[in-house]
Amino acid sequence: MPIARISVPDHLPAEKVKALADTVHDALVATCNVKSNDRFQLITRFASDAMMIDPTFPHFARTPDASIVDISFLHGRTDDQKRNLYEQIAHRASLSGFVPDDIITVLTEKSPIDCSFGRGETVKASA
Amino acid sequence: MPIARISVPDHLPAEKVKALADTVHDALVATCNVKSNDRFQLITRFASDAMMIDPTFPHFARTPDASIVDISFLHGRTDDQKRNLYEQIAHRASLSGFVPDDIITVLTEKSPIDCSFGRGETVKASA
Amino acid sequence: MPIARISVPDHLPAEKVKALADTVHDALVATCNVKSNDRFQLITRFASDAMMIDPTFPHFARTPDASIVDISFLHGRTDDQKRNLYEQIAHRASLSGFVPDDIITVLTEKSPIDCSFGRGETVKASA
Repeated sequence: MPIARISVPDHLPAEKVKALADTVHDALVATCNVKSNDRFQLITRFASDAMMIDPTFPHFARTPDASIVDISFLHGRTDDQKRNLYEQIAHRASLSGFVPDDIITVLTEKSPIDCSFGRGETVKASA
Repeated sequence: MPIARISVPDHLPAEKVKALADTVHDALVATCNVKSNDRFQLITRFASDAMMIDPTFPHFARTPDASIVDISFLHGRTDDQKRNLYEQIAHRASLSGFVPDDIITVLTEKSPIDCSFGRGETVKASA
Repeated sequence: MPIARISVPDHLPAEKVKALADTVHDALVATCNVKSNDRFQLITRFASDAMMIDPTFPHFARTPDASIVDISFLHGRTDDQKRNLYEQIAHRASLSGFVPDDIITVLTEKSPIDCSFGRGETVKASA
């Protein structure tokens, strides 16, 4: 049950934003045992003076399209799954016209007791 | 000293958004030893194409009013307190016209050293 | 590689918002071994009915300018560095016209494996 918060510059066309959101979800499905209908995403657009992204730190060549993908999900993914996730997001985003250097991804792991996905119920550990 | 980030669809009327925010705070006070004046909330509205919430995963019946409540607070709450919090948010939200399935709640626990609530002071462990 | 999410009331003039963002970055550089070009910030403005900040809890005197600074960075900073960071943010913000009580700062520590800053690469532990 991931929740992905996707922050994009507001000059991105809607179809490119949608492509990134689709990419994030598809990469989670492909690498992290996420079900195809387990999709929860919040997308926020930022004006250029509200989104400071260094263009090169530490060794990248970012463009003004650089975006931040912040994913919370239950703990349990391996380091290899996380590495595959980053690679898949960057690779698939490149198919939608992003430069791979433009995708910043950060993960937050949560315990089942810290998530309720509806009806006041706690998430099952196996979910 | 919870900080609640509440993400709602932008078609929700202002009074329903306010009712959800009040509900989140009242449930924290009722279940998690939060003082009535210890209220810190950020509310963000999302257009429908910027908020993807699956309507059924894994076994719910969500409406377009589905909202995400993301609460950060100091660690120390028990699992029972967290379960009561989820139940109270869902129950109280239902009194304001929400379907209980529409309220997604996630928690993040923080250490006192990771919080300053003003004046550059670190939060006391007992706060 | 910190990511700072800065939430401000929408009545703040642009130059005051920029001063706060500069302050947050400068304080990270001064206290937490952050490089001067390691700057990643997202700034969100909130209408007054979407930003509830108690004016006094637990013992402060906040104004309507009160703002929330939420910083994610790699773990490894000491408690003293964090205390210095809070003090430097509050002090430097006061030089831009903020009341020191108005700056709420929370930190989240991340593991290198949970961060990719571009190209699908995982962050190095020493970064």
